Amino acid sequence: MISTQAAVLHRPGEPLTIETIDVHPPGPGEALVEIAATGLCHTDTTALDGDNPSCVYPAVLGHEGAGVVVETGPEVDLRPGDHVIPLYGPECGTCSMCRSGRTNLCWSIKATRDRGVLPDGTTRFSLGGQPVHHFMGTSTLSRYTVVPEIALSRIRPDAPLDAVCLLGCGVTTGVGAALADVEAGDDVVVLGLGGIGTNVVQGARLAGAARIIGVDTVPAKRKLAERFGMTDFVHAGEVDDVVEAIRELTGGGADASFECTGIVPVMRQAVDAARPGWGTCVLLGVEPTGAELPIPPVGVRYGKTIKGSYFGGVRGRTGLSRFVDLYLDGDLDLDSQITHRGRLADVNDGFARMAAGVGIRTVLELGS
Amino acid sequence: MISTQAAVLHRPGEPLTIETIDVHPPGPGEALVEIAATGLCHTDTTALDGDNPSCVYPAVLGHEGAGVVVETGPEVDLRPGDHVIPLYGPECGTCSMCRSGRTNLCWSIKATRDRGVLPDGTTRFSLGGQPVHHFMGTSTLSRYTVVPEIALSRIRPDAPLDAVCLLGCGVTTGVGAALADVEAGDDVVVLGLGGIGTNVVQGARLAGAARIIGVDTVPAKRKLAERFGMTDFVHAGEVDDVVEAIRELTGGGADASFECTGIVPVMRQAVDAARPGWGTCVLLGVEPTGAELPIPPVGVRYGKTIKGSYFGGVRGRTGLSRFVDLYLDGDLDLDSQITHRGRLADVNDGFARMAAGVGIRTVLELGS
Repeated sequence: MISTQAAVLHRPGEPLTIETIDVHPPGPGEALVEIAATGLCHTDTTALDGDNPSCVYPAVLGHEGAGVVVETGPEVDLRPGDHVIPLYGPECGTCSMCRSGRTNLCWSIKATRDRGVLPDGTTRFSLGGQPVHHFMGTSTLSRYTVVPEIALSRIRPDAPLDAVCLLGCGVTTGVGAALADVEAGDDVVVLGLGGIGTNVVQGARLAGAARIIGVDTVPAKRKLAERFGMTDFVHAGEVDDVVEAIRELTGGGADASFECTGIVPVMRQAVDAARPGWGTCVLLGVEPTGAELPIPPVGVRYGKTIKGSYFGGVRGRTGLSRFVDLYLDGDLDLDSQITHRGRLADVNDGFARMAAGVGIRTVLELGS
Repeated sequence: MISTQAAVLHRPGEPLTIETIDVHPPGPGEALVEIAATGLCHTDTTALDGDNPSCVYPAVLGHEGAGVVVETGPEVDLRPGDHVIPLYGPECGTCSMCRSGRTNLCWSIKATRDRGVLPDGTTRFSLGGQPVHHFMGTSTLSRYTVVPEIALSRIRPDAPLDAVCLLGCGVTTGVGAALADVEAGDDVVVLGLGGIGTNVVQGARLAGAARIIGVDTVPAKRKLAERFGMTDFVHAGEVDDVVEAIRELTGGGADASFECTGIVPVMRQAVDAARPGWGTCVLLGVEPTGAELPIPPVGVRYGKTIKGSYFGGVRGRTGLSRFVDLYLDGDLDLDSQITHRGRLADVNDGFARMAAGVGIRTVLELGS
């Protein structure tokens, strides 16, 4: 058992506190990982607000990290020294979902993950002898964390961990979704230019999109999106009708529209902005729990497709290396979107910036 | 100009009347077709009820016919004697939709078609000197009709016209949708076992589905669906929860679900019955004008796809021959679904049977 610093959320509505917690040794199929860096990401804030039914308090937050394996339990192929990115979506390779070849979802340990424990039903964290829960199966806001091997993606050792940590969530989600559903020459619209949307822009550029239209209410987001490939900006607060604006720019509708806000009326704009006949609308933003989206079936019957994307459609253990390569080859820009850096103690400031819409991504370095 | 017998709908709510109408010669790009046989199909009944905004009264109904070219206007490649199936969805080959390669929709003459006239803005039918409108651009309930060449699919001359007329709408819609979205080994559910749904069953069998579950409130529809390949029947009126019944039969949900009723709550069942992770829900049934379908975005974000299908995804002029071949090769069963045959004068009886849910398809022979 080792002691380490971690950002613990004791209950919703409170700030996180930096605590010295105990980390218990990895059990069978598990690895102890020393996290080098963690990006702050929107899903963490749902736990802050108490809106995430899968957060069991107290919990160690964080799900966008990168680090190095320091110790392994029995029945583990990873070795100490391996560089890894923890995955909130595992890839066991043996469940019906993994074997289907039709989805990157793997729900083999979802039940325990969503109760804040590891697959054996217990937690590896404690504070003053009382258990502290895992969050999203990753808890990367602790310098040391324990993660099942099926939820660790081994990456090449020359990738800087304080950049590729972003591949643990938002970047991969956005870029992967665009790579999956944008064809060369497409007109693309991206609704919401936050962490996900900005990376959809980047992925659309990589896929060879002809026109990449970004939509947001905050014009300050325009600059980075343009750097990433956005060709046109629609200020949602200054046009009468966002959908009409997109139709005018595209001559009828986008080949692919990506919804990155989770706001139901914006989801509907994404559906309506897709081109009749073949436009694809991809839902990425997380709506309020239980919310429903009304769609006009006639548009679907006449060729629109509504689909979603989870972690960019990427199978974490076998698919993430491609994105690491894209970064190291200079095709994928991670550095420009890291607008703030800090240490673990800066975690609350980072979440406050996110709530205020300031900057794009904050990366915290956890090393000594 | 020739005189012929046609079934004319003067206004909604009235029966059709068999009238002797005048048919004017085909203009540039048009052909005069002698219709041999016409199937009665649900979309005609929307004109009977006044629910079809594209029906301009009085009109010659009918859109599921097959016949022989007897005369052509200028600039037409078809020749007298060619066997053809009229298409309510044309294939011009030159518009942006046709050139996209992404859709079988072609809206090049939609604007005039939906006003009940040919592309030059006039009608070729008259009664007592007053114009009578075309319907769906086909008007196959007239022994002679005039159709733009881009809306005529030439077929092999050995195909019996009184069977392949069904390929003009419902059979192709159902079979084509299944062939497009069913993979070998799939579990498939078909909601609604009418003219479309029965053919989705047939198409799913052709695509190699492992399990084909049919859902209907009318158990009498079971027999033909089983003949076409249905493996399981769910009586929608006798189970507590259709979606749960499908989930039990499939171990979690269907790989592909096909909605063939146009009833919004059934559409929702089709969405919910699709398997999490990768299930595809295909909307075929035509909802009431303006109706909306509420969907849970979470299911979409976790891998469900909602799409539609128009005329089975088939490009009419270049794709319909495949279905004629499937029929003549014995792979596609048209004959079993023709439960009633008649003459033009039997048209109102045929629609009455359809309204009462009696039988599957009625085919009227129009020859002398």
